[in-house]
Amino acid sequence: MKVKIDSLKVAARQAILNQGYNPDDAEIILEIIMYAQLRGNNQNVIKLIGAGLPANPNAGDIRVVKDTKLSAVIDGAWNQGMVVVTQATRMAIEKAKAHGFGIVGTHKTNSATGAIGYYARWIANEGLIGFVFSGSGEYMAMYGSYEPFFGTNPLAIGIPTSDNPIVFDMATAAIAYYGIVSAKTAGEPIPEGVAYDSEGNITTDPAKALAGAIKAFGGYKGAALALIVELLTRPLVGTSRNTDGTKEDWGNLVFAVDPELLADDLESFKEGVSDLIARLKDRKKLPDVDEILAPGERGDKFYEQVMATGEIELDDGLWQALQAIAGN
Amino acid sequence: MKVKIDSLKVAARQAILNQGYNPDDAEIILEIIMYAQLRGNNQNVIKLIGAGLPANPNAGDIRVVKDTKLSAVIDGAWNQGMVVVTQATRMAIEKAKAHGFGIVGTHKTNSATGAIGYYARWIANEGLIGFVFSGSGEYMAMYGSYEPFFGTNPLAIGIPTSDNPIVFDMATAAIAYYGIVSAKTAGEPIPEGVAYDSEGNITTDPAKALAGAIKAFGGYKGAALALIVELLTRPLVGTSRNTDGTKEDWGNLVFAVDPELLADDLESFKEGVSDLIARLKDRKKLPDVDEILAPGERGDKFYEQVMATGEIELDDGLWQALQAIAGN
Repeated sequence: MKVKIDSLKVAARQAILNQGYNPDDAEIILEIIMYAQLRGNNQNVIKLIGAGLPANPNAGDIRVVKDTKLSAVIDGAWNQGMVVVTQATRMAIEKAKAHGFGIVGTHKTNSATGAIGYYARWIANEGLIGFVFSGSGEYMAMYGSYEPFFGTNPLAIGIPTSDNPIVFDMATAAIAYYGIVSAKTAGEPIPEGVAYDSEGNITTDPAKALAGAIKAFGGYKGAALALIVELLTRPLVGTSRNTDGTKEDWGNLVFAVDPELLADDLESFKEGVSDLIARLKDRKKLPDVDEILAPGERGDKFYEQVMATGEIELDDGLWQALQAIAGN
Repeated sequence: MKVKIDSLKVAARQAILNQGYNPDDAEIILEIIMYAQLRGNNQNVIKLIGAGLPANPNAGDIRVVKDTKLSAVIDGAWNQGMVVVTQATRMAIEKAKAHGFGIVGTHKTNSATGAIGYYARWIANEGLIGFVFSGSGEYMAMYGSYEPFFGTNPLAIGIPTSDNPIVFDMATAAIAYYGIVSAKTAGEPIPEGVAYDSEGNITTDPAKALAGAIKAFGGYKGAALALIVELLTRPLVGTSRNTDGTKEDWGNLVFAVDPELLADDLESFKEGVSDLIARLKDRKKLPDVDEILAPGERGDKFYEQVMATGEIELDDGLWQALQAIAGN
């Protein structure tokens, strides 16, 4: 069904507030969830139903526990991941604008950070090159193993252009955790070759995959990249383990680089990027391809389309569930 | 056949000198080529035969054309890529040691940079986290295209541990350019699904692949990562195009991050990384897997094995060709 974006936003805001957040935090979470929703990304309002995103009753005050000219470490004090990474991104941008480079790590959160392309795009919109890495629980296996050890370990990179920024946002997992959850809810199989059951057999049964482990994308290379994300979001940012060896908290890392450290000036850098992208899009296409898409472009097109109509297509059940949580 | 490492090194050094390099540059090139050779990496002495690595007669003096506290841009003046990236790596390390972060780009080279894990490992051995990106000519197509536009666009990441560093060194291409050249020389097909012919058909014929384009690894994600490498090694570092649109020069980007910007101290960071790797290697293995390998570990094992015997297995024809170039 079609839902007015304004109505969806009102319901989503109330659904977030009803999960225990103060208005400031709710507004941050709403913005990041709506970013995903309006770009056709799966980190959307579906996150608010089912188990939802309940605020942690033990959440305290977010504290900056290390602060240097170029860097900071943030203790998230069990606040929601999007709220903590938003603060990390703001600090990384401030430091990079002042000194050319800013790097901020976070620990002591164990909740979703949403579509991390959001933070990378924000950094790029400030005229900086952004890198974002996000850790989570035990979902994905290393190459050669079938035991969950990594999070789905997304990374996002944002690069300014003369127009919309390039925003590359990918899980290093072969399938998003939410993709498996959605398949289970819908009673559908997951694609062949993306997950193991708990015995190490490849499975297309989402329930068995949830009890097993997700594979990395792209074979050994993808798994090695997942490991790099794991190292950058754990020992580097000071996360901890429980006594049984599982992760006590999840880490995140954001860094921003001023392109003027290398390029003559921001404008000429942006022009150079836009020029390269224009030439890329002009290359010979395979027979079944209408357009060569740069990272982020599919989401931009989706956004323009839904904003033009003011409405968005939503699953009936999802809309009803969201309204119920919002108390409508 | 087995060749003594010392003999191989003597022949390789002479082969490099005979291609027009001064002794200092030859020693740098030798070290990087031998790094690959002694770790089972394909960027090895095979690069010295056939077309080889002839010094560019137009090479001038390498110049630092931009220099800030955290950054530099190097004009390679058509010197050999390994020589120029070695200087970039040295500068990135110095800046990161002094200020926490160092980023150095290079332009005006158009020759091989070798196994770029070499530079990432060097940075990690200095107690820093290293990122290296290397551009080259038109070999790889963007997702949806079959026209070569990207280089094979490798990236390497080095992370210190209490033991050997983690060194992740991968081409974003589905197959190395040298892999196709080697297959053609051997009269063998290339694997299915890694390259297009000039008409956009998937081909296993190496000659047709050389006239066509290599695919990126890992589908759209791998291609997007290749594009990021392209952007970081072209507009950011100031490369140029010829009037026909092809690349005049190839760029490189090296950056180093001091882990103490975030972690308590280098030793605890190294211990945290080693601890995570030990736990990773201890996960449940798939039936056909003897050992879960961390990035760089296969090369380390190869290195230890050949250094223990002082000899290395080399193709007869390759050894003869190398000796011929060395004038033996």
